Amino acid sequence: MKNLIIIGGSDAGISAALRSREIDPEIEPTLIIADRYPNFSICGLPFYLSGEVTDWRNLAHRTKEEIEQAGIRLVMDHRAETIDPKKKLVQVVDTDGKTRELHYDKLVIGTGAESIKPNIKGMDLPGVFLLRWMDDSFAVHAWLTEHHPQSALVVGGGYIGMEMADALILRGLSVTVVEFASTVLTTVDEILGEKVAAELERHGVNVATGVGIESIEASGKSLTVKGSKGFSTNADMVLVAVGCRPSATLAAGAGIETGLKGAIKVNRRMETNVPDIYAAGDCVETWHNLLKKYTYLPLGTTAHKQGRIAGENAAGGNREFAGSLGTQAVKIFDLVAARTGLRDSEARDEGFDPFTDYFETWDHKVYYPGAEKIIIRITGDRNTHRLLGAQILGHYKSEISKRVDIVAAALFSNLTVEQLSDLDLSYTPPLSSPWDPIQMAAQAWTKNCGVSVR
Amino acid sequence: MKNLIIIGGSDAGISAALRSREIDPEIEPTLIIADRYPNFSICGLPFYLSGEVTDWRNLAHRTKEEIEQAGIRLVMDHRAETIDPKKKLVQVVDTDGKTRELHYDKLVIGTGAESIKPNIKGMDLPGVFLLRWMDDSFAVHAWLTEHHPQSALVVGGGYIGMEMADALILRGLSVTVVEFASTVLTTVDEILGEKVAAELERHGVNVATGVGIESIEASGKSLTVKGSKGFSTNADMVLVAVGCRPSATLAAGAGIETGLKGAIKVNRRMETNVPDIYAAGDCVETWHNLLKKYTYLPLGTTAHKQGRIAGENAAGGNREFAGSLGTQAVKIFDLVAARTGLRDSEARDEGFDPFTDYFETWDHKVYYPGAEKIIIRITGDRNTHRLLGAQILGHYKSEISKRVDIVAAALFSNLTVEQLSDLDLSYTPPLSSPWDPIQMAAQAWTKNCGVSVR
Repeated sequence: MKNLIIIGGSDAGISAALRSREIDPEIEPTLIIADRYPNFSICGLPFYLSGEVTDWRNLAHRTKEEIEQAGIRLVMDHRAETIDPKKKLVQVVDTDGKTRELHYDKLVIGTGAESIKPNIKGMDLPGVFLLRWMDDSFAVHAWLTEHHPQSALVVGGGYIGMEMADALILRGLSVTVVEFASTVLTTVDEILGEKVAAELERHGVNVATGVGIESIEASGKSLTVKGSKGFSTNADMVLVAVGCRPSATLAAGAGIETGLKGAIKVNRRMETNVPDIYAAGDCVETWHNLLKKYTYLPLGTTAHKQGRIAGENAAGGNREFAGSLGTQAVKIFDLVAARTGLRDSEARDEGFDPFTDYFETWDHKVYYPGAEKIIIRITGDRNTHRLLGAQILGHYKSEISKRVDIVAAALFSNLTVEQLSDLDLSYTPPLSSPWDPIQMAAQAWTKNCGVSVR
Repeated sequence: MKNLIIIGGSDAGISAALRSREIDPEIEPTLIIADRYPNFSICGLPFYLSGEVTDWRNLAHRTKEEIEQAGIRLVMDHRAETIDPKKKLVQVVDTDGKTRELHYDKLVIGTGAESIKPNIKGMDLPGVFLLRWMDDSFAVHAWLTEHHPQSALVVGGGYIGMEMADALILRGLSVTVVEFASTVLTTVDEILGEKVAAELERHGVNVATGVGIESIEASGKSLTVKGSKGFSTNADMVLVAVGCRPSATLAAGAGIETGLKGAIKVNRRMETNVPDIYAAGDCVETWHNLLKKYTYLPLGTTAHKQGRIAGENAAGGNREFAGSLGTQAVKIFDLVAARTGLRDSEARDEGFDPFTDYFETWDHKVYYPGAEKIIIRITGDRNTHRLLGAQILGHYKSEISKRVDIVAAALFSNLTVEQLSDLDLSYTPPLSSPWDPIQMAAQAWTKNCGVSVR
């Protein structure tokens, strides 16, 4: 009977464990977790801190009991310190510093990623927080409930920064977002990022762009935050959310090859270069379905898929990861921004000759109440008319994220922009138009591209 | 310069006219329309009658002025009576009975469909209505506003019947729906139809199934409606919505070949068997993308696509209709029911070995407020695991229709059920799960199918 050990109890690790037992019910995988929170939805932390999720326990996809009933052994509050691939041993240490060794036949590494801690003076002051794991969120929550801060400064205009700005406004704080780039949400084009910034401002958030934060100083009960361009403000708390990097030092220490940004190199079976060791999730390089090469693209959806495949193969199966398209969505106040595939500049970098069009229309027939504007940017190749990507921005009730998913499905099959318009999509006046907005955008792309194909 | 005549001013006709000018701006197409309402959204009639659309003029996708400014000549209140393909003439008659002849170089027929008038005694009584065109809706509207009916009986549990039950409840009437089949909404599986019936009843609609209506009699200011199984009730108005048939007698009279249900036979260029005559929309047979054969599948989305292709080819282009998957959606009170591709019985009839699974989950992470249940039925082939279709039912805010469209995009590229689960779809806790519900349904399908593939 195979002894399957999985390091990491988040999306990739749990997915691997569950899948291994579907493939071979005799496997009883052991899950090593550094904290006491297996299978928690870390994407849900902003909604816990906003108060929308009233009990943090609800963030668990499954309870510990459910995980154990599924036949998975949990070794919590143990950090994996070293892997010895020759002896097939993992050395773990508990919170008291006591170590022990566990033997594996197959090992899955799902150590995830960690928040980047930027070089800002005062990062370790009380009231300054990172946000990635449950313990981070407990620290923020304790500060919110015990210190009753009136103001917060969020460093970073990415997903976590945007969601936390929303969350802290909902909680009644006055919020400032500071972003180094020229606009927030740099995962989408600047023209969309500016609309997100306007949405933040509409809800009372101060947005400062083009500013690099340099120092945080204690100033009585508050914090003084200073940055470039003479930026200076006071805030009762500071949240730093400037991105993440793969947690791969454990793997690297065991001789496992790493690559982009230090992420673990894997093949599409999620095998590392070391026999019987698999890796999945935010700690690995990710196969890009469109680019047909490896990238670093940490996403929860991808971690689930890769973990499932690592678990399947570790249990004796044979399945390959189909690849990521970087499909993602975020809700910020009343807006949703979503994207899939490549943006214009990314496509150009990869040797395509991209054209990206701007299209705006209504989410459904305007005669039916509640119609909202929706903005679509389609990127395609001028020469082949191959569809390369899409970005959509609109009201959170406008089915933005599932509209981007239609494009993701089209990208999966290498369709052209014209074929996107050929798709047979559903229509009822309260929800769409006879041509779905993404099809109208595709037709506009062809018209404006200037190069006729077919 | 080509003289392009288009008969019919609804979805197919207008799409053909607009597209012809995109292809060749020198064409000034002439549109012959039997009424005065070109380019009206007949799918929107229930929302006009409900009062949600306050002015019927808003149902126009474009105003007459906009159509004429687009370079299209409108010949309204003229019915095309005969086509002479030898002389290339269309004889039209106006409302005074005066006829004239118009010469064409290319002709597009977009005569649409007409309501089936069932063999029920009393169909022509005042207060009994069909609903397809603007004049039908004006007649219903006049009855509602002048006679102030307190109760309505709807014959037929299809899309129009369901939407009108919703509309008339919103208007304050007491409503009974009578359906001949064992449940309403027979375009989806019975288990879903029953949930729709429950939704109707939850909103106060009386639902009588398995009943055939036999007679309508005037009874004072009201109508007495009788049917099988001893059904008898009174209602102040009756709406009969039992389906439609293609309007193809004009075409047939000109020697144009017809087929299924009398619909005009066309090839994928939307050409009829008669040179220089194209046809599109609800009057034609429709190429089915999955079955690779012709069917009769009248839908507004398809009419737009076919009309666009007819217009493109009539103007000298060369483009083929990619085909329909029968993708459709309807909102009934708080529910949306949507489908694409084949259902189990349809797949069996076509020689597949289908398996259809029932799956129920939440539309988004349940820890985030407002989660609603969503029901998904995936149909796939047991032997090849080819995806054949999906039906989804859920709350109208649950992105049901765009979720079915993701499946439609997958069907367009002949994906397997497993590949549906491989798609890289977007996720944010307020809107979905790391595995979208359709992917969870796909995984459940594979697990429950009992036949392993790959």
